[in-house]
Amino acid sequence: MRLVAVAGATEAMLDNLLQPHCLPGEKDRPARLLAAMRYAALGGGKRLRPFLLVETARLFGLEGEGVLRAACALEMIHCYSLVHDDLPAMDNDDLRRGRPTVHKAFDEAAAILAGDGLLTYAFDIVADAPTHADPAVRADLTLMLARAVGLGGMVGGQALDLEAEGRDTPHEAGFVALMQAMKTGALLLYAVEAGARMGGANALQKAALSRFGAALGAAFQVADDILDAEGDEEALGKRAGKDADRNKATLVAVLGLAQARKKRDALAREAIQALEDGGFGDKAGVLAEAARFTVNRKS
Amino acid sequence: MRLVAVAGATEAMLDNLLQPHCLPGEKDRPARLLAAMRYAALGGGKRLRPFLLVETARLFGLEGEGVLRAACALEMIHCYSLVHDDLPAMDNDDLRRGRPTVHKAFDEAAAILAGDGLLTYAFDIVADAPTHADPAVRADLTLMLARAVGLGGMVGGQALDLEAEGRDTPHEAGFVALMQAMKTGALLLYAVEAGARMGGANALQKAALSRFGAALGAAFQVADDILDAEGDEEALGKRAGKDADRNKATLVAVLGLAQARKKRDALAREAIQALEDGGFGDKAGVLAEAARFTVNRKS
Repeated sequence: MRLVAVAGATEAMLDNLLQPHCLPGEKDRPARLLAAMRYAALGGGKRLRPFLLVETARLFGLEGEGVLRAACALEMIHCYSLVHDDLPAMDNDDLRRGRPTVHKAFDEAAAILAGDGLLTYAFDIVADAPTHADPAVRADLTLMLARAVGLGGMVGGQALDLEAEGRDTPHEAGFVALMQAMKTGALLLYAVEAGARMGGANALQKAALSRFGAALGAAFQVADDILDAEGDEEALGKRAGKDADRNKATLVAVLGLAQARKKRDALAREAIQALEDGGFGDKAGVLAEAARFTVNRKS
Repeated sequence: MRLVAVAGATEAMLDNLLQPHCLPGEKDRPARLLAAMRYAALGGGKRLRPFLLVETARLFGLEGEGVLRAACALEMIHCYSLVHDDLPAMDNDDLRRGRPTVHKAFDEAAAILAGDGLLTYAFDIVADAPTHADPAVRADLTLMLARAVGLGGMVGGQALDLEAEGRDTPHEAGFVALMQAMKTGALLLYAVEAGARMGGANALQKAALSRFGAALGAAFQVADDILDAEGDEEALGKRAGKDADRNKATLVAVLGLAQARKKRDALAREAIQALEDGGFGDKAGVLAEAARFTVNRKS
């Protein structure tokens, strides 16, 4: 169970990074802010993004502290995005993974600052020497991360998602695919591309892994849309779930359940095909398994 | 008037960076989010931080696009911090530089995301090749920036400031100095240290410039506290200003006006002394002038 092993190692490293002692250049780590950041980052989640980064680097024989640090940076970004998305002004969610959201457990100001702190810490980690010996790799990891999660990536995707929610007109498939590629796809793709960059992938390998990451990211989001729609249908006996109630832009809404399932399975096949084309052989078995897991998961 | 020249160049470069076309790795720049980021970053402010970075780099003969990009990254961080600090859950301000704040001109979700976008874009800029030819310098600029503005710097300082506001007990001078060194001092210090790193300062020069930046940052904040207290006294005829009404932790509150003025002037002298000790001679005249301007400004 590589997923469980990586999740455990990620949790331990996150705990280690979020301690009260200061790093050089820091002046103090205020206790309540640190507590809110720890609450947001620790004790939950499948750690799928760290898993993808760690397993991609492992294709090239790279393992250890540096890779795990980069994986934790990525997870901090994911956690920050959940904290800000849950705020009353955004999705206004009170629960996350069965616990009160950060603004409920602390307060709104703490949630905004904890998110800002986690986002900033992620860049600290990827730029710092223990992550990779080569500063050119660290600068690249920083730049790739910023592109994946900024205005033209995750943050932009969240902005499009909020705008779409307010619309009366039906969403178009092209818009939904773009929004999802930005909001969730970009960070999953980064996980794979960061692992490839750290491991020193050649051009062919890099292209194959980018195809894998893009297809996996898209499959992940369609699977999410399907789970929301199916889960509510079966468990609550109503026609559609939370997404539909909110007029969320989802691929189930624009394609219907049957077509969305076909799309999901085609994307998973495309992801696995990309690994084969990259010539990684049996070594890529864990990543192929991750693609299958992504489309077959029940939560 | 170097301050005016740098402000103009900063404005033009910010405008250039915040255009609708995508950079490699970005998928789309959503129009409304981009508009909120432009509203937050353009058309205002003295651009003191860019000025300090540009003029410090100029001590070493370094000028041009790369330095200006780093200066814009810094200014984006400053602007993001104002947008988030103005939010209803934080300082709840409706006006900034005489215009509606971002959450008033757009909405709260847009303000949160615009802040996140500007913060992220800053790291994109410092890590990207046009900022400096040497990736080791870019990785250092990233790391130094993250330390200055994260949990142990600016974000932590804002958290301490909000906590202090809620307290009934008088604030202590040591606490106020720490909070201010984090909330405003760290970013001003970064401006100077980033300029020194880009310009290739030696150890002695670096130490002198760090002393200059730390003293200038502290002087700037005491001057701010004094302006708030004095401004209201003279204009409104009451004993203390907005800071006192909010029980804000300021040096005027803990030292009184007369001692705060002495402190401010001593810090300005310390800043100018540091430049002399660094052996920069007449070349540092512009920075010394900046220290005098900081303590004598009226707004």
